[in-house]
Amino acid sequence: MSGSVLAVDIGGTKFAVALVDSDGNVRAARRAATPPGGDARALWKALGELVDSLLDGAAADGLIDGDTAAGGVVDGVGIGCGGPMTWPEGAVSPLNMPGWRGFPLRAKLAERFPGVPVRIHNDAVCLAVAEHWRGAGRGSANMLGMVVSTGVGGGLILGDRLIDGGSGNAGHIGHIVVDPEGPPCGCGGRGCLEAIARGPGLAAWAVEQGWHPGAGSAYVETALAGSAYVEAAAASGRQLALDAEAGDQIALAAMRRAGRALGLAIASATNLCDLDVVTIGGGLSQAGPLLFDPLEAALRDHIRMEFARRVRVVPASLGQDAGLVGAAALILAADRYWTH
Amino acid sequence: MSGSVLAVDIGGTKFAVALVDSDGNVRAARRAATPPGGDARALWKALGELVDSLLDGAAADGLIDGDTAAGGVVDGVGIGCGGPMTWPEGAVSPLNMPGWRGFPLRAKLAERFPGVPVRIHNDAVCLAVAEHWRGAGRGSANMLGMVVSTGVGGGLILGDRLIDGGSGNAGHIGHIVVDPEGPPCGCGGRGCLEAIARGPGLAAWAVEQGWHPGAGSAYVETALAGSAYVEAAAASGRQLALDAEAGDQIALAAMRRAGRALGLAIASATNLCDLDVVTIGGGLSQAGPLLFDPLEAALRDHIRMEFARRVRVVPASLGQDAGLVGAAALILAADRYWTH
Repeated sequence: MSGSVLAVDIGGTKFAVALVDSDGNVRAARRAATPPGGDARALWKALGELVDSLLDGAAADGLIDGDTAAGGVVDGVGIGCGGPMTWPEGAVSPLNMPGWRGFPLRAKLAERFPGVPVRIHNDAVCLAVAEHWRGAGRGSANMLGMVVSTGVGGGLILGDRLIDGGSGNAGHIGHIVVDPEGPPCGCGGRGCLEAIARGPGLAAWAVEQGWHPGAGSAYVETALAGSAYVEAAAASGRQLALDAEAGDQIALAAMRRAGRALGLAIASATNLCDLDVVTIGGGLSQAGPLLFDPLEAALRDHIRMEFARRVRVVPASLGQDAGLVGAAALILAADRYWTH
Repeated sequence: MSGSVLAVDIGGTKFAVALVDSDGNVRAARRAATPPGGDARALWKALGELVDSLLDGAAADGLIDGDTAAGGVVDGVGIGCGGPMTWPEGAVSPLNMPGWRGFPLRAKLAERFPGVPVRIHNDAVCLAVAEHWRGAGRGSANMLGMVVSTGVGGGLILGDRLIDGGSGNAGHIGHIVVDPEGPPCGCGGRGCLEAIARGPGLAAWAVEQGWHPGAGSAYVETALAGSAYVEAAAASGRQLALDAEAGDQIALAAMRRAGRALGLAIASATNLCDLDVVTIGGGLSQAGPLLFDPLEAALRDHIRMEFARRVRVVPASLGQDAGLVGAAALILAADRYWTH
C-alpha cells in the first residue's frame, strides 16, 4: 500500500494525472496537451507516457516504491472523463476527442494497474464530488455541483452519497428545459439550459446582438491564440465575463441571460431534490455578481416553498486540481462516492 | 410481534387506516370522512376512533392480539400525510386541513403506540414508495412516482433508495418550472408544472376557453354533489378527462396542455436524475392516451441523449390502498424507504 491513488483527468484539450493522498492532497501532478487529431493509439500512448513520467518522478522523490512497471505502486486508479461513456465499464467516447470512440479506457488502465480498483465517472461528476469532498460543498448532504463552460454539466450528491442514476448519467443539469421554445441544443432537444448558458452559445447570442469581443478588454487576442476550437469556445465565456465587467452592455445582457437560465434550472433542481447547496465552477462563473445577481433573482422568484428557500448557490472553491481530486475520491472516499 | 404494521393515510377529505402485513397486503382497513371544519382536537379524536375501530375489528377477527389499549399490538406505525410538515419530527400542517397547523401527529401516535417505530412522510412520497415496492415501478432502481390530482406531487427513488432531500421534501416534481412566463402557482412562483396541470388549474383554463363541464358526459352532477372543495377540485380533472374522451374539443385541448407540461417536467427530471421509469397516478391519469400521447410527444422531444431515452412513463398500478401500502413500507421495507 502506497497510501496514494492515481487520478486521471481526461479533458477536451489536455490530460492531467496526479498522485493524491488519502486527505485529498495532490502530491505530484503532470499535465500535457492532447495530441491534436490523435487517433485512439496516439491518445493512449500520450496518456501512458504522462503516467510513466508522473510515477518515475514520484519514485525518484520517494513518494512511491520504485518499481513503476508493475502494479501495486498505487492503491487504486480514479478516472474522470468527458461523456458519453458506458458505465461503470468505462468505454469512453468524449465529445471533444474524436480519436476515442468506445475506447476501453477503464479496462486499459485496469490492465496497467492489476489488483487494485480502477473506477471511472463523468468529468463533471468528478468536479461535483471534489467540491463535496474537499470544496465549497463540504459538510452539506444534498448538493448539486455544476460546471458552466463549453458545456453545462454537473453531479448530484443526495443523502451524502453520489447519485449515479440508472446509467451513471445523473447530474445532467445542463439538459433541464428552461425555455421550451428556446434555441436548439447539441443534444438534439430545444431550450435546454446548456443551449443558452454554455460559453459558445452565449457568445453566439451576443455576437448576434452586435457584440465585438474584447471591445472592453485586452483578453481576446491571448485567448484566441490557441488554435483548438474547444479552448476558443471556453475562452468565449471568459471573454464575455471580462467585457461585462468592463461595462459592455451586450456582454452584460448576456450575463443576465445566462444568469436567468441558470437560476431557473437551479430552482427546478432545488424543488425536485430538496438541495442544501449548489456550487458553480467553470469559466463563466468568474463573472461574479454580474452572473450571480441575475441568477439569484430568477432563482428566488421560483423557489417559494419554505423548504426550498434555504438553498445557497456558491462559486466552486477548488481550482484546476478539482477534476483530479474528484477522480481520486472514487477510490479514497468510496463509501460516499462509489455506491455502485 | 404481530407481524402487522398500522398504516395511516391522512388525505384532504378523509382518513384511512389499515393493518398491512410484511408482504404489503392490506389485511383490514377503515375509512372515514374528516369532520368538516374540525379543529385540531376533533380531527385527532376522529382519527383515534378510526384506529380503535380498526384494531377492535382486527382483534375480533384474530388478526392481532386482543389488548388493543396497550402498545405492542403492531410492529410499527407508518403515516402518510399532506405537507407541509416538519420532518422527520412530523408536526403537520396539511394544506387542505386548516384544523391542523403544526399538529404533532407523529408524536401523538408514538405516545399511543409506545416501543415501536412510528414514521411519517409526505403522502405523495408514500404513493411513490408504494408503486416502487409493490406497484408499477417494482424492479426499477431509479423511479419518479407522480400523482396528478388537486396538486401535482411525487417521490424520488434513486439507487433503489427513497431520496429524502435535506428536509424530507425531495420529489416535488410539481414545482419544476415548465413555462417561466406561465400562470402563477399556489407556491408563490410562476409557471410550475402544478400551476398548469393540477385538476383545478386545468379546469379553470378550460372554462376560460369556453368549456361547459359535462357537456359530453353525465359525470358532473355526481362528482359535484360532494360539498367539499377538495373533492370538487379533484373531480374537475376527472370530469375533463371524461369530456375529452367524449370528444369535447376544449377538454381535449386541456389534456394536450397538461400532457405537454407533464412531458416537459418529466424530461427535465429524467435528464437530471437518469431515471428508469415514471409512474403517474391521480384523477387526471385516468384520461389514458388522451393525456399520455401528448405527454410522450413532449417528453421524447426533450430527452434526446441516448441514456435518457430508455425512460418509461406508465400509469400507477395500485388503487386506493396505495397511500396505506407506502406508509407501511416506511416500517416494513425500511432498508430502502427509511434511510434517515
